[in-house]
Amino acid sequence: MTDKVETAKFDVDAAVEHLRTLIATDSFTELLSELANVRPADIAAIMERLDRVEQTLVLDALEPEIGSDVVLELEESTRKNVLEDLSDTRIAQMADELESDDAADLVGELDDDTRARVLEQVPQESRDEVERLLTYDDDSAGGIMKLEAAWVRQSHSVAKAVEMVREHYREMDEIHEIFVVDRNHVLRGVVTPTELLLADPAQTVADIMDSESPVTIHPEEDQAEAARLARRYDRLSLPVVDDLGRLLGIITHDDIFDVIEEEEQEDISYMAGTGEDAPAERSVFKAFFERGPWLLVGLVGGVLGALVMSGFEHAIKIEHALFLPAIMAMAGSVAIQASSLVVRGVATDSFALQGLGKTLFRELRVSILFGLGLGALLGICAYGLSGGDGELSACVSVAMVIVVVNAALLGTLIPVLLHRLGKDPAVATGPFITTLNDVLGILTYLLVLTILL
Amino acid sequence: MTDKVETAKFDVDAAVEHLRTLIATDSFTELLSELANVRPADIAAIMERLDRVEQTLVLDALEPEIGSDVVLELEESTRKNVLEDLSDTRIAQMADELESDDAADLVGELDDDTRARVLEQVPQESRDEVERLLTYDDDSAGGIMKLEAAWVRQSHSVAKAVEMVREHYREMDEIHEIFVVDRNHVLRGVVTPTELLLADPAQTVADIMDSESPVTIHPEEDQAEAARLARRYDRLSLPVVDDLGRLLGIITHDDIFDVIEEEEQEDISYMAGTGEDAPAERSVFKAFFERGPWLLVGLVGGVLGALVMSGFEHAIKIEHALFLPAIMAMAGSVAIQASSLVVRGVATDSFALQGLGKTLFRELRVSILFGLGLGALLGICAYGLSGGDGELSACVSVAMVIVVVNAALLGTLIPVLLHRLGKDPAVATGPFITTLNDVLGILTYLLVLTILL
Repeated sequence: MTDKVETAKFDVDAAVEHLRTLIATDSFTELLSELANVRPADIAAIMERLDRVEQTLVLDALEPEIGSDVVLELEESTRKNVLEDLSDTRIAQMADELESDDAADLVGELDDDTRARVLEQVPQESRDEVERLLTYDDDSAGGIMKLEAAWVRQSHSVAKAVEMVREHYREMDEIHEIFVVDRNHVLRGVVTPTELLLADPAQTVADIMDSESPVTIHPEEDQAEAARLARRYDRLSLPVVDDLGRLLGIITHDDIFDVIEEEEQEDISYMAGTGEDAPAERSVFKAFFERGPWLLVGLVGGVLGALVMSGFEHAIKIEHALFLPAIMAMAGSVAIQASSLVVRGVATDSFALQGLGKTLFRELRVSILFGLGLGALLGICAYGLSGGDGELSACVSVAMVIVVVNAALLGTLIPVLLHRLGKDPAVATGPFITTLNDVLGILTYLLVLTILL
Repeated sequence: MTDKVETAKFDVDAAVEHLRTLIATDSFTELLSELANVRPADIAAIMERLDRVEQTLVLDALEPEIGSDVVLELEESTRKNVLEDLSDTRIAQMADELESDDAADLVGELDDDTRARVLEQVPQESRDEVERLLTYDDDSAGGIMKLEAAWVRQSHSVAKAVEMVREHYREMDEIHEIFVVDRNHVLRGVVTPTELLLADPAQTVADIMDSESPVTIHPEEDQAEAARLARRYDRLSLPVVDDLGRLLGIITHDDIFDVIEEEEQEDISYMAGTGEDAPAERSVFKAFFERGPWLLVGLVGGVLGALVMSGFEHAIKIEHALFLPAIMAMAGSVAIQASSLVVRGVATDSFALQGLGKTLFRELRVSILFGLGLGALLGICAYGLSGGDGELSACVSVAMVIVVVNAALLGTLIPVLLHRLGKDPAVATGPFITTLNDVLGILTYLLVLTILL
C-alpha cells in the first residue's frame, strides 16, 4: 500500500531534481520510462517547476496522448508559454488525442493565426467538432460539453446496444451513462452499462431504460445552471439537448467539479476584489491591472469620506474623529456579512426557498440586535476614552445603531437587486459595499454629532 | 421537450399552492400520486414553503423510500424540526432505506436519546453500518464514505464477476466502478461495468482491470483531501482503504460535489465573518451568536484605533484625520486581496506549485506599484482638499506606500503561516486581517505625520 499512499502525496520536489538531471544529460529514453507510471496531473506539477526550455523538451519527448493530458493540467500561464513554444504539428497531434471539449479548450487558447494553422493539421472530423464547440460561449453549458455522448436507439435490443458500445464507444474515456434516443435523435431516457450487463439480450432498450424523464440542459444556458442541476438532482453527468430535445453532447462530472469551484472562486474574487488575478499567475503587471480597479473603488470612497468630513470640519473636534474607525469597521463588516449570506443563498439554491421579505425581515432583526449591542459597547468605550463625555458617548451609540441597521439592509438589498437584474450578486460583496458603507457610516456619524451636540 | 425543461425549472410556487389544497382537504391519495413523478429535491423545495404540521403530514404520507430522500434534501433547520416531529419508527424506516452514508448523516443529526431509540428499530445489519460510520469525524473521508462499495476478486472470471453484480449489487443505487480486491480484501484495481460488458466471460478480472494503482484515501484524512484527489486525478469516486490497503468504502461524486462547495463556502464565510450562519437559517439568535464574535473583532480593532489616535490627539489636527478613512480602506483592501490569493492558491492546489518566496516577491512588487500609484493619487487629492498643504500631501503619500506594502506582506505571510501550522488559512482573510491592518494603518499614518511634520 505504501506506493499508493505515495502516489496520492506525490513528491514533486524529488521528482523535479531527478528529471532535471535526466534532461541535462539528454537521457530522454530513461525520462520517458520514468514518467510512464506518473499520472498526468503529477507530470504537470513537475513541469511547473521546470524552466520554459525544459518544459518544451519534456512535452516534445512525451507521446502526444500523454502530453495532451499534461498540457491540460498545467496552470494557464504555463500552458500559454508552452503552446507558444510547441510546433503547430505537435499541438495538432495533441488536440486530435483529446476529447472534443478538451481539444476545443486547448485550441481556443491559441491566438487566431496559430489556431488556423493548427486546425489545418487536425483531421477533418476532429476539426469539425472543435470548430462547432468553439461557437459556444466559454461560460455556457455548450462551452463545457463534449460531443462524445454514447447513445443507442430505444428500439434497439440489448444485444444490439452492447454491440454498439463495443463498436463505437470502446475508445471513449469512460462510459457511465448511455443515452437512449428515438429515430429523430430526441433524448428519451438513460441506461447504464450495469443495466445492459444484467439485462436479457433480447429485451429492448426501451424496456430497461430509466423511465424518469432525464434532467437536461440547453447548450446556451449558463454553466453554473448545469452545475446546479447536477447537484440538485445528484447527476453524474448532464445530457445537453437542443430546442427540439435532440441529444448534442454531455457534460461530465469533472466539468461539474470545475464549474462548482470556478463559480465559488469567482465569488471569492469579487469579495476580495482581486478580479481574475490567479494565485499562480506570475506577471506583476497583470496583477496590477486586475486588482487596481477594485482598489480605486476603495480610494474613491476614502476621498469621498474625506470630502464629507471636510464639510463638517468646523463642527467636529479631533476627539470625535477617534471613533470613526470603529463606526466604519462595523458598517463594512455588517454589510459584508449580509451580502455574503445572500450570495451564498443564491449559489446554494437555498435563497429561492425563502422570499426576499423573510430574508430582509430576519436581517433587520439581527441587525437591530447587533446595533444595540455594538452601540452600547462602543458607547461605554467612548465614555471611558473621552474622560466621561456622556453626550459624545450617546452620539456614538446612536450613530452605531443607525449605521449597523442601514448596512445590513443595504447589504441585503443590493445583491438581491443585482440578482433580479440578472447580474452576479457577488459583485456587491466586496469593495463596492464596503466603500458605500464607509462613506455612509462617516456621514451618519457626523450628522448625528451635529444634530445631537 | 417542454416537459423536460419544466422539470429542470420546477415551478415551486404553483406546486405549493396545489399541495396546500390537497392537504387541507385530506386528499392524501391524490397527493401521493401527484408527487410520484416529482423528484425528491423538488419535493423538498415545496416542503420548505409548507408549515411544520404540513411538512410532517406529507412525510408521513410518502413511502419511506421517497420520504428518506426528501428529508436529505431539506435545509438543515427544516430537517431538524421534521425529525423532532416524526415518530422513531418512521425515522428508523427511512434510515433503513438510505445508503449507509446518508443513513449515518440522518441518524447523526438526532439527539442522543432519540438516536438510541431509533437505532433499536433499525435492522441489525444497517444499524451496525451506521454505528461504524458514526465513529468517523464529520469532516473526514470516513465521514462521507458509504460502505456499499461493489467489489470482486481479481481471481474471479468475468462471468463470475457479472454474477456477483447480479446477485449482490443490483440493489445499489448506481454502480459505475467495481473494485478489485485480493483474498485479503486489499484493493488491487478497478473495473467498470462497461469493461465487464465487453470482456470475454472466460477472462479473469485481473486480465481486464485497470493496471494503474488506484488513487485511494484513508478514512481519517480530511474530506477536503478527498475532493482534491478526485479533482486532481479526475476520479468519479474514491475508494477508502485502511492502513493495510483493505477496501472499506467509497466516496462518490455527489459527496465530492458537496465537499468542494462546502470548503469554498467555508472560505467565503471566513472572509465575510459570518461563521456557520446559513442563508436559509431562520433563527435570529443563532445568527447573532454566529456573526457576533466576528463583529467584536472589528469593534476591538476600532477601539484600538481610537486608543492609538488618542495617543496622538495633541499632535494631530482634524485636517489630518480627513485622510484616515482612505488609508484604512486601502490597508484593508490590499491585505484581503493578498490573503485571498493565498487561500485560493491553497484551495486549488496551485500554491504548492510555487514556493513562498516567489509568492512573497511577486506580492512585494505588486504592492510597491500599488503603493506608489495610490500614494500619488491620494497625495494629489490631499493637496487639493487641504488647500495646497504640500507637507500634509507628502505625508499622506509616504504613509500610503508604507501601509500598502505592509498590508500586502502581512496579507501573504499570515495565511501562509496558518497553513504551515495546519490551520485553515481562510481564517486570515476576513475581519482579523482587516482589523489588524486598520490599526496598523492608523498607527503608520500618525507616526509618519508626527515624524515628518
